[in-house]
Amino acid sequence: MIAEILSTGDEVLLGDIVDTNSGYLCERLKEMGIAVQQITAVGDSVARISHALGQIAQRADICLVTGGLGPTQDDLTATACAGAAKEELVLNPRALETMVAYFEKRGFEITLDNKKQAMLPESAGVLVNRNGTAPGFTMSLGKCGFYFMPGVPSEMKSMFEEEVKPELSDIFGLTKEIFIERLTIFGLPESRVGALLEGFDAKFPGMNLGFRAKFPFIEVKIVCPLEETAGSVKGRVETIKKVMDTAREWAISRLENKVISPRGRSLEQEVGRLLKEKKFTLAIAESCTGGLISNLITDVAGSSDYFLFSAITYSNEAKMNILKVSQNTLEDHGAVHEHTALEMALGVRKACNADWGISTTGIAGPTGGSVEKPVGTVCIGIAGPGFETAKRYTFDFGTRARNKKMFAAIALEVLRRRLMDS
Amino acid sequence: MIAEILSTGDEVLLGDIVDTNSGYLCERLKEMGIAVQQITAVGDSVARISHALGQIAQRADICLVTGGLGPTQDDLTATACAGAAKEELVLNPRALETMVAYFEKRGFEITLDNKKQAMLPESAGVLVNRNGTAPGFTMSLGKCGFYFMPGVPSEMKSMFEEEVKPELSDIFGLTKEIFIERLTIFGLPESRVGALLEGFDAKFPGMNLGFRAKFPFIEVKIVCPLEETAGSVKGRVETIKKVMDTAREWAISRLENKVISPRGRSLEQEVGRLLKEKKFTLAIAESCTGGLISNLITDVAGSSDYFLFSAITYSNEAKMNILKVSQNTLEDHGAVHEHTALEMALGVRKACNADWGISTTGIAGPTGGSVEKPVGTVCIGIAGPGFETAKRYTFDFGTRARNKKMFAAIALEVLRRRLMDS
Repeated sequence: MIAEILSTGDEVLLGDIVDTNSGYLCERLKEMGIAVQQITAVGDSVARISHALGQIAQRADICLVTGGLGPTQDDLTATACAGAAKEELVLNPRALETMVAYFEKRGFEITLDNKKQAMLPESAGVLVNRNGTAPGFTMSLGKCGFYFMPGVPSEMKSMFEEEVKPELSDIFGLTKEIFIERLTIFGLPESRVGALLEGFDAKFPGMNLGFRAKFPFIEVKIVCPLEETAGSVKGRVETIKKVMDTAREWAISRLENKVISPRGRSLEQEVGRLLKEKKFTLAIAESCTGGLISNLITDVAGSSDYFLFSAITYSNEAKMNILKVSQNTLEDHGAVHEHTALEMALGVRKACNADWGISTTGIAGPTGGSVEKPVGTVCIGIAGPGFETAKRYTFDFGTRARNKKMFAAIALEVLRRRLMDS
Repeated sequence: MIAEILSTGDEVLLGDIVDTNSGYLCERLKEMGIAVQQITAVGDSVARISHALGQIAQRADICLVTGGLGPTQDDLTATACAGAAKEELVLNPRALETMVAYFEKRGFEITLDNKKQAMLPESAGVLVNRNGTAPGFTMSLGKCGFYFMPGVPSEMKSMFEEEVKPELSDIFGLTKEIFIERLTIFGLPESRVGALLEGFDAKFPGMNLGFRAKFPFIEVKIVCPLEETAGSVKGRVETIKKVMDTAREWAISRLENKVISPRGRSLEQEVGRLLKEKKFTLAIAESCTGGLISNLITDVAGSSDYFLFSAITYSNEAKMNILKVSQNTLEDHGAVHEHTALEMALGVRKACNADWGISTTGIAGPTGGSVEKPVGTVCIGIAGPGFETAKRYTFDFGTRARNKKMFAAIALEVLRRRLMDS
């Protein structure tokens, strides 16, 4: 089957926004076993949209179209589609009905501008929009089935999930159930992750691997569509779950102990989960990471259950006054040192009677480095029940922002490993 | 002039990566006064790339192509281009020369795989790659001039800037000099910014406006290409600078006092600049923002000049012990209250003898809200030389992450306005 995507709207062609809709749809179609062959983006022009629709109709079996369904003058997709199909635009009663329902629910009266959105080509079928006013529609041009969705990502996504995906599944005998497992990896570059998982395709036919780098993490996605094969659905689901488990275990075993979550959780979620499970509280002392670790920890909803207090001590005075780092340590070894890091972790832990204290002190750059302590140097301290240690790491990832991210991830990973053993 | 972009590579069509190259090129071309009419993305297939090239050659005057120039089996662009042009691939001596130079500089020997990258269509001209091994090339198909660049963003960008842009400028009489002014705006939705600046095009012909939303900020870009007109270059530059100043002042005057930087700086950069200029130091007490403000402040290189200390006090005990918030205040008014916010700001200021202290306490959600204090409530405190106040704000931006961002921006904006007056 040949699938294509058409994205309409001037914003993308002017470089004002990046077209994330197409990437989303490619990914979802891939999960359904459908490979997209081409993506086209054109501006708000009836002639260009119409031309693109005509060319796609000659090549593709299905096409997902986004954008141009709104109430304003530059929303031209329905007009262009009617032109390409040599049909008239007519008021679609079902489309109007869904819009009236949407407005009534919110206590608004429908306006004439909005009614324009219910003008669809004669042969169009309606796709309901539960998150906005613009109805979508579906119709055939040539041998190709087109699905027209709004350009607003939230509206597009829910329409795809609720309206388009079930219809594609019915028509093409695809399943609505797709099994996905996600692994979060820290400490390996993407190329190395790919190399370690070589042989997956041969070992697990019918399943796909996807990779996504989100510095400094890599997410590996194992995807398995529920194929139409013999046997009961329940039986097939159980079989797939077993195969998925085997595939996940195989991948984890190859990834050199670098999988931080076999469920796709983030490092901060995983640390939070462990703290909650073991009923531990946490305090953080940050210097070079400047609040990033605390910000990550508190991005997790419910983190107030275990997170008590952070001290971001940029100045030596703050390190001494708040964290009780000794003046001697700072004078003898400097702010960036294992001894300082350890005293920071111990100090912050004590300051709020937390079970665990972690700390960072280092040089994120671009300036402040020396031959002995270059940019990219960080000391991580950790203190907990009957446990205290500190360690130095050095690697420069090129920018202050990336160094901060890497330093924060190392500190959280040190804590995670310790919590696993506690 | 009709310009198009062709992006090649399976990664985009599989949804593994978002095509940011095309957005970058659209934006740069727009700055040169060239509007892109269509973007096409196809996978690593000779037939599909060749088909796309053929169709674009019929429509466009210029086309920028990215991807598929590497040394591996799935790098097929040169082959596809030769096919579309009915030419042979030949070893291009100039391309080989630039590659050898690149390798020699790094002390590597060139391999056979790499030499494949110097096999280009017979009529191709070479585009030098200073940041990688794959040479780019340019050639004509039909009436259209094609520019083939690597898919790696850093290599593509430098090749565009150094090789393609100057050539486009020469051919089309465009300028190499483009004048850009950026305004950073906080406190207005994008639609409102657009509405307030309506009339710009009529008032300043030849100049363009661009908008970019980066929650919770909007960046407005004023772009003016140096046109080929009468008069000396120096004279023209001076004229343009004057017009740009006028345009910027006009835009600022329309934007209701919501421009936080007339030079495109971020809010945290602007706060840092003011603190440095006025020789003030800063301390921060965060509750609901969880370290985000500190992280933003310390993202700015050189922030150790003015930033001393932050206390992220999630627990009431930490608010009392570290910041000396009184138990009575917490019992009478709760953690989320103006009184608490003010005591936090005063407390953190005192803890490290800073000139200024700012604080946040609120409910970022998704849980923790009440009828009286719903999710989206935040109290901001500020204390400085002879000045102290606290204020409550309520608006829910839908997610914990967005609420945190908005709370942090309000706190920094309160500080910025105060510093402007100090």
